[in-house]
Amino acid sequence: MARTGRRPGPTQTRADILAAARGQFGAHGFAGATIRAIAAEAGVNPALIHHFFGTKEQVFVAALNLPANPAVLVETILDGPREQAGERLLRLFLALWTAPEPSRAFLALVRSVSTNERAATMLREFVETAILARVAEALDVPKLRATGLAAQLIGLAMVRYVVRVEPLASATDDEVVALVAPVLQHYLTP
Amino acid sequence: MARTGRRPGPTQTRADILAAARGQFGAHGFAGATIRAIAAEAGVNPALIHHFFGTKEQVFVAALNLPANPAVLVETILDGPREQAGERLLRLFLALWTAPEPSRAFLALVRSVSTNERAATMLREFVETAILARVAEALDVPKLRATGLAAQLIGLAMVRYVVRVEPLASATDDEVVALVAPVLQHYLTP
Repeated sequence: MARTGRRPGPTQTRADILAAARGQFGAHGFAGATIRAIAAEAGVNPALIHHFFGTKEQVFVAALNLPANPAVLVETILDGPREQAGERLLRLFLALWTAPEPSRAFLALVRSVSTNERAATMLREFVETAILARVAEALDVPKLRATGLAAQLIGLAMVRYVVRVEPLASATDDEVVALVAPVLQHYLTP
Repeated sequence: MARTGRRPGPTQTRADILAAARGQFGAHGFAGATIRAIAAEAGVNPALIHHFFGTKEQVFVAALNLPANPAVLVETILDGPREQAGERLLRLFLALWTAPEPSRAFLALVRSVSTNERAATMLREFVETAILARVAEALDVPKLRATGLAAQLIGLAMVRYVVRVEPLASATDDEVVALVAPVLQHYLTP
């Protein structure tokens, strides 16, 4: 399509920002990329990025089309009795998949980290910085335990939602909670 | 390259058989495909397939380039005291990754099941029939528990070897065993 001379609308501006964000995160990693550099590449004011997306973390979540904002997962772990943290986290995680969007986003993510070394690097750095370090600090568990928990959740998504192995694919959320919540609790208990 | 008039060598014949196997497994699933139909498609005698690969299961493992023959994993679970089955299985699983080949094969597998619905279907049916049903029966655990175990192992491979999140990526096998073996044991204990 030929470009018109008009100013781009908000949809196009959002898309330009996300493209610039993927470029900057890809080139400099999650820690190295800045909102300012993303704004410069997209040709917009940094304040507009904050207005559209919020924090750098939220820009990352949008740019990689992550199934959920990990900050919400962290808050969920912390919000309530510690001995039920595993179950709370798991119920939130399972609830994500009732909509088709997160499933598609997760599939796209699995595809890109298994195809593209740069995507794997970006995701790795983000998970380490924005999720695991925070969970480990807030709950005072070693980071290694937090990675074990992440492994269980990612594997659950692969088997239940991507490969859809039975009987896990058709199990009710309550059955999955009975099976897997004790495992998450194990990882959250130092 | 132009084909010569010579009879194809064993390397070409193996490749033809594996291509035919992928076609047949793709079209009819693991259960529906037969060695006879694979042989017919490849234009070889069924006995040659048995000679090259062994059972239909082993043809499947070779055709999908699976990181390991799942039959070996099942034997390992069963061979020794039951209360150490989780650790035995995990040590075997971790040992697989010291060679570069299984890592590449696993990456290729993740890529294909996240890209291609047919590959996901083939793998699902194989995992259900050839692995989970057997483990569940041999150990008298519900199949659902066996799928939880599979989820933990697959997630471990994703986080430790594909995305390589620290500190799990650099942890020693003994550290991983201390962290994850109790989880596998949980799934193997009815």
